[in-house]
Amino acid sequence: MFLPKSFSRWINTLSPVRIILFFYIIAAIFSTILMSLPIAYKDGVEVDFIDVVFTAVSALSVTGLSTITVADTLSTTGIFLLAFILQLGAVGVMAIGTFIWLLLGKKIGLKERQLIMTDQNQTNFEGMVRLIKQIILVLLTVEFIAFLVLGTYFLKYFSSPGEAYLHGFFGTISAVTNGGFDITGESLIPFQHDYFVQFLNILLIIFGAIGFPVLIEVKNFLFSRNRMLTHFSLFTKLTTLTFAILIFVGTIGIFLLDVQHYFVGKSWHESLFYSLFQSVTTRSGGLSTMDVSELSESNHLFMSFLMFIGASPSSAGGGIRTTTFALAVIFIITYARGGSSIRIFRREIHEEDLMKAVTVTLMAIFMVFISVLFITTYEPFTITQILFEVTSAFGTVGLSMGITSELSTTTKIILMTLMFIGRVGILTFLFMFKKTKRSGDYHYPKERISIG
Amino acid sequence: MFLPKSFSRWINTLSPVRIILFFYIIAAIFSTILMSLPIAYKDGVEVDFIDVVFTAVSALSVTGLSTITVADTLSTTGIFLLAFILQLGAVGVMAIGTFIWLLLGKKIGLKERQLIMTDQNQTNFEGMVRLIKQIILVLLTVEFIAFLVLGTYFLKYFSSPGEAYLHGFFGTISAVTNGGFDITGESLIPFQHDYFVQFLNILLIIFGAIGFPVLIEVKNFLFSRNRMLTHFSLFTKLTTLTFAILIFVGTIGIFLLDVQHYFVGKSWHESLFYSLFQSVTTRSGGLSTMDVSELSESNHLFMSFLMFIGASPSSAGGGIRTTTFALAVIFIITYARGGSSIRIFRREIHEEDLMKAVTVTLMAIFMVFISVLFITTYEPFTITQILFEVTSAFGTVGLSMGITSELSTTTKIILMTLMFIGRVGILTFLFMFKKTKRSGDYHYPKERISIG
Ligand SMILES: [K+]
Ligand SMILES: [K+]
Repeated sequence: MFLPKSFSRWINTLSPVRIILFFYIIAAIFSTILMSLPIAYKDGVEVDFIDVVFTAVSALSVTGLSTITVADTLSTTGIFLLAFILQLGAVGVMAIGTFIWLLLGKKIGLKERQLIMTDQNQTNFEGMVRLIKQIILVLLTVEFIAFLVLGTYFLKYFSSPGEAYLHGFFGTISAVTNGGFDITGESLIPFQHDYFVQFLNILLIIFGAIGFPVLIEVKNFLFSRNRMLTHFSLFTKLTTLTFAILIFVGTIGIFLLDVQHYFVGKSWHESLFYSLFQSVTTRSGGLSTMDVSELSESNHLFMSFLMFIGASPSSAGGGIRTTTFALAVIFIITYARGGSSIRIFRREIHEEDLMKAVTVTLMAIFMVFISVLFITTYEPFTITQILFEVTSAFGTVGLSMGITSELSTTTKIILMTLMFIGRVGILTFLFMFKKTKRSGDYHYPKERISIG
Repeated sequence: MFLPKSFSRWINTLSPVRIILFFYIIAAIFSTILMSLPIAYKDGVEVDFIDVVFTAVSALSVTGLSTITVADTLSTTGIFLLAFILQLGAVGVMAIGTFIWLLLGKKIGLKERQLIMTDQNQTNFEGMVRLIKQIILVLLTVEFIAFLVLGTYFLKYFSSPGEAYLHGFFGTISAVTNGGFDITGESLIPFQHDYFVQFLNILLIIFGAIGFPVLIEVKNFLFSRNRMLTHFSLFTKLTTLTFAILIFVGTIGIFLLDVQHYFVGKSWHESLFYSLFQSVTTRSGGLSTMDVSELSESNHLFMSFLMFIGASPSSAGGGIRTTTFALAVIFIITYARGGSSIRIFRREIHEEDLMKAVTVTLMAIFMVFISVLFITTYEPFTITQILFEVTSAFGTVGLSMGITSELSTTTKIILMTLMFIGRVGILTFLFMFKKTKRSGDYHYPKERISIG
């Protein structure tokens, strides 16, 4: 054990939620130190401390909002450091921590497992440690394959193999972790007519945003000897369905809201890919194949809504989460119809989960509203621009209408807080202020749905 | 009985909620016919049919949004007709209906009483009929006194007593019913330095917006022989407290958000009265002592939030209602703290009421968002202007940034729908689509809180 006993004892007095927050803060400080290293920057480049912190927090929360242009600012070393922080943020500080503990041969106790559980919003105790290992394994495998494919494909775009594979490497990390940073200087706009690159990025973004439990269940299904017996959990079904619906509705919506503006004179496949990619990226990706500020204001409002929902729980994304949104919608429809108990996929949903979903949604709306209201009092930007930036931070998406670098320090601090809350989850954040642990939280007999 | 038996039988097959909606629609048609009469207009004035309908619906829902300038358009007869529709809308179509039934000596049956109950959101069966009588009596008394005071006071403003008392009459009706229409051509701006007129209007607006049950309980308290034994209901306490807090927070907020803009160079009492009056009017009044479009955009956002909340249940106002907002906030705070049962004023609140409050809030947010998103796709106005107009309609407030008359027919129809839903209440509106009546809805042993 590296740590002194007194520290170890102090940690044990904290609730799991506080430990997670404690580690997130440590990770944020660590990331800030990494991004403060002079070797991370190109010669002659100077960056304000607030922008260093902002970049570190944005990377750790895999948001991708940036007050600097990575391509002009960071050295190759800096790019690798940024990729490392993204990776750290995506897997989750706790998962990494457990993995290290595993490597050190330390037996994982109840408290540590519970801790991971809260971080990844997992409600089933069994297989927690195995899950972490699987997360890392699946992630690295996918990243390695994508890196090879993308890097090799990029040989036709870049003059040297080194440059091509660097872009392949960072592009892969940025897409899979849903980091949304870019080293091209203009996101995926250079590939706006390359449907192969876009399609691969869509797959990678979905991979990062759909939630690790889904990936694990799909993997188990694919490698199972008897597929007929494989059981997909209610959580996987609900989150995947919601995710698919959101992408579909998002694509249609983005297209329709600009059919008379941005998409005028564009071919059907161009319009389709622009709409599809931008819909997918609002789940949490943050990369874009166009300058989103060129879309209509209605579309900015619509995309803010999509970003607010965000990704699936236990994924690299943020926001209120797909399941929260789904349960809130189901709850409202059922309630309006006068029904009492709510059933989906032949399972009854826990009332407490519904309450959670509705609470999270309302709190998040309130938080976004207050943030926008406050920021508009002193920033010279339109309410829509600010709403877009705020929901992008809360959903850890990273899309921007291009105002991030011009924001004041106060706004940057607000956005960092939103990224943090969006990534950690609004309930985890709130439970930080709670003294007594809620008993019986993981002991319900019915099947549970995890809420952002 | 004037109606044929077959009609009477048909009415009895409908659920209370549908009967109310049926009568609202009848009242809307009736109001439209009244406002279509040529004698309602000044010579040579022509108004489009959509604007006639809009004025009728706006008056019946006591909203006050107007696509015409009443002062330039309506004749004196028209002004009286408008006042009559406002009165009809404020008391509630059903209350009027019951009153007429009472006058005709018809015994009020269970079904009719239940009907009134739903309309006024009353949850206690007892004294329902008496309540309606009291509403009319209290309202007429207050209106008569206010008319005398205001009319006499206006003698110093207007050249003839006839004009002074006409303004006194319409001003009183518009304030008490929270109608928000004006015959000055510029709301209460002519009285922007007359604190007596403003203070009287504030009292009248609060009278109309605080909810009839509160008024009745206060009246009972004042005229009670033994005040020590008089019991204020949980509903009265909660709605009055919330109302007061909203006015206070609204005043402070409106002042602070424009302290560096609109209020620069204004005296403390001018700033106070501007802030106070505009805060009060967002509860549902709709009259204003200034051109609200001159305030900062942050203030428009803030006022939209205030209008969205609206007035107390069982009042002349709309929105999600003060109690809904209070319960939603209490619910969130309690939930975040990890508490389960919710107590205020030494009473436990029903879980179903909390669910209702949260549901109504979320549905209303969704409805407002969709409306704004849709309208922005074709109207040339800013999102803030449209949000302001939409929340003003839903809260049946009637404040506007001056764009109402320039809106397209589609937008007018959307606003009329919002006024209707805002006035009827979002739950009543939804229950219209429900086939089976919810059993036991009025039979809980605990004390209930009514939700918009
Ligand atoms: K992102
Ligand atoms: K009004």
